[in-house]
Amino acid sequence: MKNNRKEDLPFSMRGKSLLGQEMFKVLDKARRLEEEGIHIYHLELGNPRLQPPEEIIDACVSALKSLDVGYTSSAGHPSLRRALTLRYARSGQRAINMENVVISPANVIISQFLDLTCDRGDRVVLFTPAFPSYLAAATHIGLDVVGIALQSENGYDLTEQHIEAAISACPKAVIVNSANNPTGAVYSREILEHLALECHRHGIWLLSDETYGELCFGKMFYSLFPHDYPRLVIMSSFSKIFSIPGFRVGFSISHESVAEKLALSNSTLFSCLSAFAQLGCAAGLQVLDKYSAAIREYFAQRARECSNILNTSGSFRCMPPQSGFYIFLDIGRTGLDDFAFSARLLEEWQTAVTPGRSFGASYATSIRLATCGKYEDVIEGTHRVVRLAQELSV
Amino acid sequence: MKNNRKEDLPFSMRGKSLLGQEMFKVLDKARRLEEEGIHIYHLELGNPRLQPPEEIIDACVSALKSLDVGYTSSAGHPSLRRALTLRYARSGQRAINMENVVISPANVIISQFLDLTCDRGDRVVLFTPAFPSYLAAATHIGLDVVGIALQSENGYDLTEQHIEAAISACPKAVIVNSANNPTGAVYSREILEHLALECHRHGIWLLSDETYGELCFGKMFYSLFPHDYPRLVIMSSFSKIFSIPGFRVGFSISHESVAEKLALSNSTLFSCLSAFAQLGCAAGLQVLDKYSAAIREYFAQRARECSNILNTSGSFRCMPPQSGFYIFLDIGRTGLDDFAFSARLLEEWQTAVTPGRSFGASYATSIRLATCGKYEDVIEGTHRVVRLAQELSV
Repeated sequence: MKNNRKEDLPFSMRGKSLLGQEMFKVLDKARRLEEEGIHIYHLELGNPRLQPPEEIIDACVSALKSLDVGYTSSAGHPSLRRALTLRYARSGQRAINMENVVISPANVIISQFLDLTCDRGDRVVLFTPAFPSYLAAATHIGLDVVGIALQSENGYDLTEQHIEAAISACPKAVIVNSANNPTGAVYSREILEHLALECHRHGIWLLSDETYGELCFGKMFYSLFPHDYPRLVIMSSFSKIFSIPGFRVGFSISHESVAEKLALSNSTLFSCLSAFAQLGCAAGLQVLDKYSAAIREYFAQRARECSNILNTSGSFRCMPPQSGFYIFLDIGRTGLDDFAFSARLLEEWQTAVTPGRSFGASYATSIRLATCGKYEDVIEGTHRVVRLAQELSV
Repeated sequence: MKNNRKEDLPFSMRGKSLLGQEMFKVLDKARRLEEEGIHIYHLELGNPRLQPPEEIIDACVSALKSLDVGYTSSAGHPSLRRALTLRYARSGQRAINMENVVISPANVIISQFLDLTCDRGDRVVLFTPAFPSYLAAATHIGLDVVGIALQSENGYDLTEQHIEAAISACPKAVIVNSANNPTGAVYSREILEHLALECHRHGIWLLSDETYGELCFGKMFYSLFPHDYPRLVIMSSFSKIFSIPGFRVGFSISHESVAEKLALSNSTLFSCLSAFAQLGCAAGLQVLDKYSAAIREYFAQRARECSNILNTSGSFRCMPPQSGFYIFLDIGRTGLDDFAFSARLLEEWQTAVTPGRSFGASYATSIRLATCGKYEDVIEGTHRVVRLAQELSV
């Protein structure tokens, strides 16, 4: 391509403000080292490597073999929409129908939600530390992002004061994420209902990202599903709960007018998703309760084990997460910032983690460990985090 | 969901201007009729139902069975990027490397291209009739779309006058699509090079959609790949050539600075695509030349057969397409417009087609037939188009 790499091309405002996701850059860097034959301990991505339910793989393979490889509905495969509708309706907390359920990759739903509800310059509130895609999507769209910092002292819990601050910022939209990535916190029913009601009363759009809801072990999960406020969008994903992030399938539950827009956005953006991947997820729903009970127990055990390694080292202090598989770790005492620590950890200790600033500008003294990879790698990777700290005389 | 369906929710400008793709609405309507037990003749979507290369299905199944279901690189699976790089580099027309190749669903590339290069209010030129996603993506972003009408008299060919008109409109971006959907036209090397050079000289972004390039039978296909203008983006898809639209995998070739933005956009929007689907496509590339020779012959035969049915009926006159599997048919003499004709055809003759206005506002007297579905259905569906015309005394 000649030597025109540095050419200053006239990208649009949105083109200029693309951030991407830091942990995918870390993944790329780690994969390049792997191509050189170096073994890497992957703790950067929430990329669960457990055995998914065989029902999912079987249904997907069987759809492929029967050549179910054509287009399907933009709103999602009817079988999967129906299965989700039944599952949620069975809770009896609210009547919904298929028109409320739209299938899209969960990461896309974040962009779609902001794109459908906010114009350039509008304000969106995030509670930080927050999943990087919220900031990446909001920045891409040109939104004014207000981060309301949760406190590590109380386990990054959401409180009435945080909600008051959020509403006072007069945002167009708020994103809440319980169970939380990266902190592992799980918010109470009372506080989530309070947030939803306040948003409803003030005409504020609310996205409730419930991707890790099925993975709560330290505290009871509360879904905002029972509330049919028209500006409330519930989203979740099959990636984490079934250990199949590569399927790229998630879903939203929303008011019919919103769901119609989400389906139109799917149609405009990517036409539809793979039928075979969606049929796999539909088969998985049949065994979800049994499977999730087992992996909840598994992740609880991992969270304890990794927290123990860190806490008994004397180099770190961390609270064991109440859900999921992330540990948001304060590395302030090492004297290195998040980028420097992560870079040295990868180069010297072959261990990939995500720098804290991916989750908000003020988290330069934190890193996130994802403990959902291969067991031996996660344990060894956690030990290597400790070893780097000890090398730094902490 | 209570009776709040009609609630007037405050969507963003982009949210309000979503169009989606008309043929997916037709598909949904047709599928609802099918659920009532009615057999539908599908001529609405370019949803090829041929047998894909078994290498693709085998590689995809094998990746699934070996649980390759985690995240992969946002820019695309390295195996597929490498295989594409080698394939294009082998032509010897231009040196490229993996950094020029990004994997994304082809429909997403259209949105990404416009999003990265154009701001709200900027102008984009389409040559019409044009694939509906161009208009849907441009409208969603708030662009000023200028359609330059090609003429049916000369088989909807692109000429110097059209290019002059395009450049005079002072657009930020132009989209060109040879081989063409919906007209089946294939533009000459001379005219495509002229367009690319004019865009380059005037600093205009150019998207060359080459999705149907491998499916040319009436005329030689010319790819703009040899030209390394920094504002030129080549895109294509595996959907049509391998009869696997459900895989949702396409790719772009562009200047490294542009490719970097496209990968960042992937990361922001959908994180990454399925590794197993991409590995399937990589396996397909090994047999592409053999497979495409066979299906080119097959589609040429279909195009002749369907054109014959229409032309010998006395009700219609159409030029057989030079590529792909679409027939853009003038129904003016029936006295019905495109929407009325399509609706009656679906209701009375159980045959689904796409109304002409999906391809530009001025095509109210055309419909598009996709002849790539099941053989018997396509032939019978084409006969039913004739029968409706005869019922209307044409």
